[in-house]
Amino acid sequence: MHAPLSLPDLAEITADILQRVRKRRPRVHCITNSVAQAYTANMLLAAGAVPSMTLSAGEIGHFVAGADALLVNLGTFDPERQKAVDIAVGEAAERRLPWVLDPVFIERSSGRAEFARELVRRGPSVVRLNRAEFAALAGLEAADAAAARFARSHATVLGLTADVDLVTDGTRQAAIANGDALMSRVTAMGCAGSALVCACLAVEPDRWLATVAALLAFGVAGETAAKIAAGPGSFAGAIIDALDGLERETLRASAKVT
Amino acid sequence: MHAPLSLPDLAEITADILQRVRKRRPRVHCITNSVAQAYTANMLLAAGAVPSMTLSAGEIGHFVAGADALLVNLGTFDPERQKAVDIAVGEAAERRLPWVLDPVFIERSSGRAEFARELVRRGPSVVRLNRAEFAALAGLEAADAAAARFARSHATVLGLTADVDLVTDGTRQAAIANGDALMSRVTAMGCAGSALVCACLAVEPDRWLATVAALLAFGVAGETAAKIAAGPGSFAGAIIDALDGLERETLRASAKVT
Amino acid sequence: MHAPLSLPDLAEITADILQRVRKRRPRVHCITNSVAQAYTANMLLAAGAVPSMTLSAGEIGHFVAGADALLVNLGTFDPERQKAVDIAVGEAAERRLPWVLDPVFIERSSGRAEFARELVRRGPSVVRLNRAEFAALAGLEAADAAAARFARSHATVLGLTADVDLVTDGTRQAAIANGDALMSRVTAMGCAGSALVCACLAVEPDRWLATVAALLAFGVAGETAAKIAAGPGSFAGAIIDALDGLERETLRASAKVT
Repeated sequence: MHAPLSLPDLAEITADILQRVRKRRPRVHCITNSVAQAYTANMLLAAGAVPSMTLSAGEIGHFVAGADALLVNLGTFDPERQKAVDIAVGEAAERRLPWVLDPVFIERSSGRAEFARELVRRGPSVVRLNRAEFAALAGLEAADAAAARFARSHATVLGLTADVDLVTDGTRQAAIANGDALMSRVTAMGCAGSALVCACLAVEPDRWLATVAALLAFGVAGETAAKIAAGPGSFAGAIIDALDGLERETLRASAKVT
Repeated sequence: MHAPLSLPDLAEITADILQRVRKRRPRVHCITNSVAQAYTANMLLAAGAVPSMTLSAGEIGHFVAGADALLVNLGTFDPERQKAVDIAVGEAAERRLPWVLDPVFIERSSGRAEFARELVRRGPSVVRLNRAEFAALAGLEAADAAAARFARSHATVLGLTADVDLVTDGTRQAAIANGDALMSRVTAMGCAGSALVCACLAVEPDRWLATVAALLAFGVAGETAAKIAAGPGSFAGAIIDALDGLERETLRASAKVT
Repeated sequence: MHAPLSLPDLAEITADILQRVRKRRPRVHCITNSVAQAYTANMLLAAGAVPSMTLSAGEIGHFVAGADALLVNLGTFDPERQKAVDIAVGEAAERRLPWVLDPVFIERSSGRAEFARELVRRGPSVVRLNRAEFAALAGLEAADAAAARFARSHATVLGLTADVDLVTDGTRQAAIANGDALMSRVTAMGCAGSALVCACLAVEPDRWLATVAALLAFGVAGETAAKIAAGPGSFAGAIIDALDGLERETLRASAKVT
């Protein structure tokens, strides 16, 4: 059904998608924890998107209605955010907006894991998570086959991040070997990556391609930043600079996707 | 009534005001959204002011009572913040503290716009906003004449930021052509600018001059930072460094005010 | 009872403790204000620890139960955080987890000071605060003798930060003359320092040594960062880089402890 895509194709498609984000400036509404808000907003701005962040039950519906994609990050899980999530996901469903679920730290709290499972039933376009979070969500080892099965049975796309990121919609599979160890030394880096998936989804209807593009661009930007950073403090700013300046040629030269 | 001020005057006056902020270290209490809190605090510290940020209804009155100026930013608009705003504005009025209203994103939510209009009736010293926000607030095109009329009829000062910032009290008008496009690529930059207006108001009773000084210093710092920044990530820190180190001579040489 | 430790000992012990943090990667749960959350998390990550930050009453108990140390920072003092503090401190007591109290700005609000005094009665491992906060907490001038007395009578360790930091458990006393003036020009720097105390407490049972190690490493990292920073904006990232890269040799060469 889907012709296989070679590596050069994916680097080119990623460059195309980034270009569209920069041109169309999609609005991404983010429900995220207070730790991650500023960094996530800056990552979206660096990509060319326009972030908004309100959580107020009285107005979040309006913000989502005017947005092009929605991020639901469970990093701080309190009643206020749960209510905001409920309204926002309802609005997204009604308007057929793409939305991304990032079930942060669900392996540390059973209530949070249960809430994440409920949200998966409401049909996120993409679930972006790490292996411990996948295990808590699916009750399964985070093996590639399990991820593909989970994506298929829930009709979603999984972006499973690790040293090598896996993106699967149950049929197509990409393994992205880009990125740098410093990415795990800055708080909210994963959250910011999920926000990038939103920005790409806003301009690319193929959810699998949008997720590959976001994680590939993010990984390559991380490698560029690591070359000049003196540590995690300077890296935090450098990856934003690198994403802002990321060029087609760099993607072509650096992409490690199989 | 007011003798016209030439450009060199305004650069000198700005340098004088900055010097007073650095010497007197005014306390600025900020009601602002969680996205903007840390960046706003760091911008105030770079200017020489002392920020506080609590929103708790039980203690915000004490903090405002001990402050020299108040910032009311509507960036995250929830019941907790609305209540904090009500107490804080009441305390500021009683103590005749200057306060700045920053009606962030009111064009995206009618409830927020209505709340902003109510606040304008409570007499902010300055309203700092962009053109879309002005249109939502005033129900008018953001032309210069409309801004002057709005400032006059509401007995306030408008700081209308755009490529060229306009500062008007209805009688006097300054157009500030400093700044850099990177300033719109970092989240909370506008909020931080409004906080600078507070810091200047705390040491300068002429609200129009204080607003001009804050926006001029901010724009010149932005230009200085843009010369060394590699992108929005490094720019975010560089503008704080530039404001911290901003000298009279740089203001004289760089100010573009008419 | 305690053999006196010479300066070289303390530099070596600090290096040993840092090494253990990097190796064991202790989990530090932080109750802190929204201004400080991201910076605190990044400082912990730079040290090698793993931060978590949730405040939700429904899950904070689980997070504390899985943590190796707890930070209680009163920087934003609202009912939500008070409730979170109560649950978290109870859980820490039950599991004999070390916890640090940082009574931010209690000199500005009597309700906050009262809450801090109550918390001191619940037995924090360490109280990290500045001189104005100590005066508000103890109702005493912040002289060295008063600090030692307070530590002894409350069976805690005091980390009293100033140009020269004082660490006392009532018997042992260390004066740390490291650090840089830029440290007071970045928001949440003190909060981040308290978080480092938590990270050290998680791997070192002697609370006094853990506190000395955290404040000494922090001060030396600040000096390293000040050498390359152009102002407070670049300093904020540079101290994180410096802590990440801090080596035994630098500690040996730079420690000023008496």
